[in-house]
Amino acid sequence: MQTVLNYEHPLSSPYRVLTKQAIDDQLLVHERTMISKAATLKMEWRTVPQSAHSKNTVNPVRKIADACAVQPNPSKRTIRLHLGDPSVGGKLPPCPEAVQAMHESVDSHMFDGYGPAVGALAARQAIVDKYSTPEATFTADDVVLASGCSHSLQMAIEAVADAGDNILVPHPGFPLYSTLCRPHNIVDKAYKIDMLANEVRIDLTYLETMIDSRTRAIIINNPGNPTGGVFTKRHLEEILEVAYKHKLIIIADEIYGDLVYNGATFYPLASLTPKVPVITCDGIAKRWMVPGWRLGWIIIHDRFNVLSEIKKGIVALSQKIVGPCAIVQGALPKILRDTPESYFEYTRNVIETNANIVENILQDVPGLQVIKPQGAMYMMVGVEKSSYGDDVTFCQNLIKSESVFCLPGQAFSAPGFFRVVLTSAEEEMEIAAMRIRDFCIQTYQNRTDSEDSSDEGLDLSTIESD
Amino acid sequence: MQTVLNYEHPLSSPYRVLTKQAIDDQLLVHERTMISKAATLKMEWRTVPQSAHSKNTVNPVRKIADACAVQPNPSKRTIRLHLGDPSVGGKLPPCPEAVQAMHESVDSHMFDGYGPAVGALAARQAIVDKYSTPEATFTADDVVLASGCSHSLQMAIEAVADAGDNILVPHPGFPLYSTLCRPHNIVDKAYKIDMLANEVRIDLTYLETMIDSRTRAIIINNPGNPTGGVFTKRHLEEILEVAYKHKLIIIADEIYGDLVYNGATFYPLASLTPKVPVITCDGIAKRWMVPGWRLGWIIIHDRFNVLSEIKKGIVALSQKIVGPCAIVQGALPKILRDTPESYFEYTRNVIETNANIVENILQDVPGLQVIKPQGAMYMMVGVEKSSYGDDVTFCQNLIKSESVFCLPGQAFSAPGFFRVVLTSAEEEMEIAAMRIRDFCIQTYQNRTDSEDSSDEGLDLSTIESD
Repeated sequence: MQTVLNYEHPLSSPYRVLTKQAIDDQLLVHERTMISKAATLKMEWRTVPQSAHSKNTVNPVRKIADACAVQPNPSKRTIRLHLGDPSVGGKLPPCPEAVQAMHESVDSHMFDGYGPAVGALAARQAIVDKYSTPEATFTADDVVLASGCSHSLQMAIEAVADAGDNILVPHPGFPLYSTLCRPHNIVDKAYKIDMLANEVRIDLTYLETMIDSRTRAIIINNPGNPTGGVFTKRHLEEILEVAYKHKLIIIADEIYGDLVYNGATFYPLASLTPKVPVITCDGIAKRWMVPGWRLGWIIIHDRFNVLSEIKKGIVALSQKIVGPCAIVQGALPKILRDTPESYFEYTRNVIETNANIVENILQDVPGLQVIKPQGAMYMMVGVEKSSYGDDVTFCQNLIKSESVFCLPGQAFSAPGFFRVVLTSAEEEMEIAAMRIRDFCIQTYQNRTDSEDSSDEGLDLSTIESD
Repeated sequence: MQTVLNYEHPLSSPYRVLTKQAIDDQLLVHERTMISKAATLKMEWRTVPQSAHSKNTVNPVRKIADACAVQPNPSKRTIRLHLGDPSVGGKLPPCPEAVQAMHESVDSHMFDGYGPAVGALAARQAIVDKYSTPEATFTADDVVLASGCSHSLQMAIEAVADAGDNILVPHPGFPLYSTLCRPHNIVDKAYKIDMLANEVRIDLTYLETMIDSRTRAIIINNPGNPTGGVFTKRHLEEILEVAYKHKLIIIADEIYGDLVYNGATFYPLASLTPKVPVITCDGIAKRWMVPGWRLGWIIIHDRFNVLSEIKKGIVALSQKIVGPCAIVQGALPKILRDTPESYFEYTRNVIETNANIVENILQDVPGLQVIKPQGAMYMMVGVEKSSYGDDVTFCQNLIKSESVFCLPGQAFSAPGFFRVVLTSAEEEMEIAAMRIRDFCIQTYQNRTDSEDSSDEGLDLSTIESD
């Protein structure tokens, strides 16, 4: 008690009688002092604002994913088809050669230390050996390693554009492009991809109207996320014509590369004519099925020797995090060299089979429109708003009723669609597709019963961009 | 021939006689057209400028390292004491438990896919289990993983400051702080560390004069690179007093942590009083001796609940590269839990022994001043300019004559010093130190012989900042 009160000890005052009341009074004074002290303390330290840069680093998927955080149907096992991560589900593990390469890299102890910020020479040379062709020749000097393809894209974007400049990005498309542009006040101008055409294609006439003196690059993602579309050779040449005409460099996000099927062929953009300067962003995430290993790369295809400054910039930016995990760098030469073609045949086959299963089950469901995919690992399905509500509502209800998780198209600037990830086991895909079908038939029936009107029809001919 | 000339075929002109001359003339016209076309092509594509952001991403070490790219003495084996990478030389390999943890993580196949951008919960919890103390309690929610401590620092800096704001950085100090600030037009204001004091300390009086309304944080690096200094508890409390008085948050770069020796004790800044908001940046690079594995982390010690916005910002920034290599994240719990104390005793002992070897050999060399280190893995040695020239000249001549590589202090804003990395084998350190000694004695002798004047003396009492 004495220690509590010793800031003004009652006994120290000869004029006060030491009663219980006196002690209580003193305690009250003490308590108030402490409270006011705490209050002052709190006022002294105000909430520190975050920077505009971090505040403007926004992943739109998060908000939409949050909206889909509803309770699944407890009587049905959850099926997750919303994450673009081929490792989920165990159907697409990395190949034994890649795993062995990691063990060897760890045991070699040659990759415990820092490598060059641009990446180990052997790893960069392995990329040359694998991907340099007579049509698109490059050397190890043109390669910079990154911590995943996301980081490749970050460095490419940050090296080419300043605040007030703009970069053309695809809608529907991977939202990270915008997430990476906006904190730097680089304007992400959306061009349109027509998923509903016979062959998926960019509206190039519209794209050309968006080009101005501050346009620094066009991002082309092929095969496409979320569309599952693969551009034809002819269309890629048309894209290059536009870039050539306007003297614009292309940032080619080719992370899905030759993961194509259903008759499609993948053409690396840099291999086609007319040649334009291309910054290719790629990595091992989606063909070797190890996005968690975080190894990506940039290939600078420097047509006409105009990217020397940009290359310097990318090299400079690589110093910020001093390269990706060196263990994976050490494993890369073996991964690229020794993965057998049969592994890629297997993975392509899994995804093609899944695509066809889902397509067959959903194609005649009223109010749905399946966009037949040919690449990457996704399928887009259009939902009739008048029957199912918007895509977020549709996905919420699908979770609540069927415990099937898909991402609403709004996450990819494709409102009116939902995205199905095609990497699970066949049986799982089949169950999921049948649940989606049953849910739709049920919902569609109820809606016809209650509203007795279905003339509004499907209007999926245009894709709104948000 | 016809195809070459068919743009204006000579045969198509009835008025021309088809002579060899006529064909040659046409060929010349054709050639000129092609050349001019090529020239136009070249002019059409101009060198694309890099962004201001990448142009301002400059690592000052590179320029100085380039200046030191001189030929070593071919008759002497090269000894490299310039890279702050403990894996060089093989004396400080990672412990078997860490290696085993990596193998287990690869084989588990639980870390092939994406984890949360802020890092796997188990990895973040392992950091809590290892480092949360009653004096500085935190939870897994306060931890964000990064691709190395450099990336931790990048996120911390980018989350707290905007263009025009300033951050106080140490001189001498790790140049990356400035490399990370400048592309964002965040001003890196240099405060001074007095390495020559009995106890290494910050000139706090001077530091206080630098604080203004745009100051967002103070970066404190302890133990220090390149100084090898460890701040006393009393001095850390003084630093906290200043931060408390000015209500400034501290970014604590504690990557060397308890790698201290020669009687020093390491106090995590967040554990001391007065408490201020501290963003601790750390990782496994320099105590587990695996900088190449690229795993770092941020701990947000949110005193007074004022860092909620900053935390949001750091979480947002972590989305850009979607977390560090998941394999290393998977290994982290075992690495932090199972590395035996004997491993740290061994590494501390290696560095302490090396420090004392180098000190003993160099301490009486004329014109050198050894700064006795107590932590990290570096030793600074002052060089008398009048005898040896500036630090860059000294290091160049040391390479040319003795094949011993050290980094000039200018790389760390410590002109007049050179930095010795203390991670090689004892015998190697001894040979290197003896070569340095011999080189100095020889140079000093020559200089006295030729100039016959040595009164200028050592002036190392002040550290110039560049």
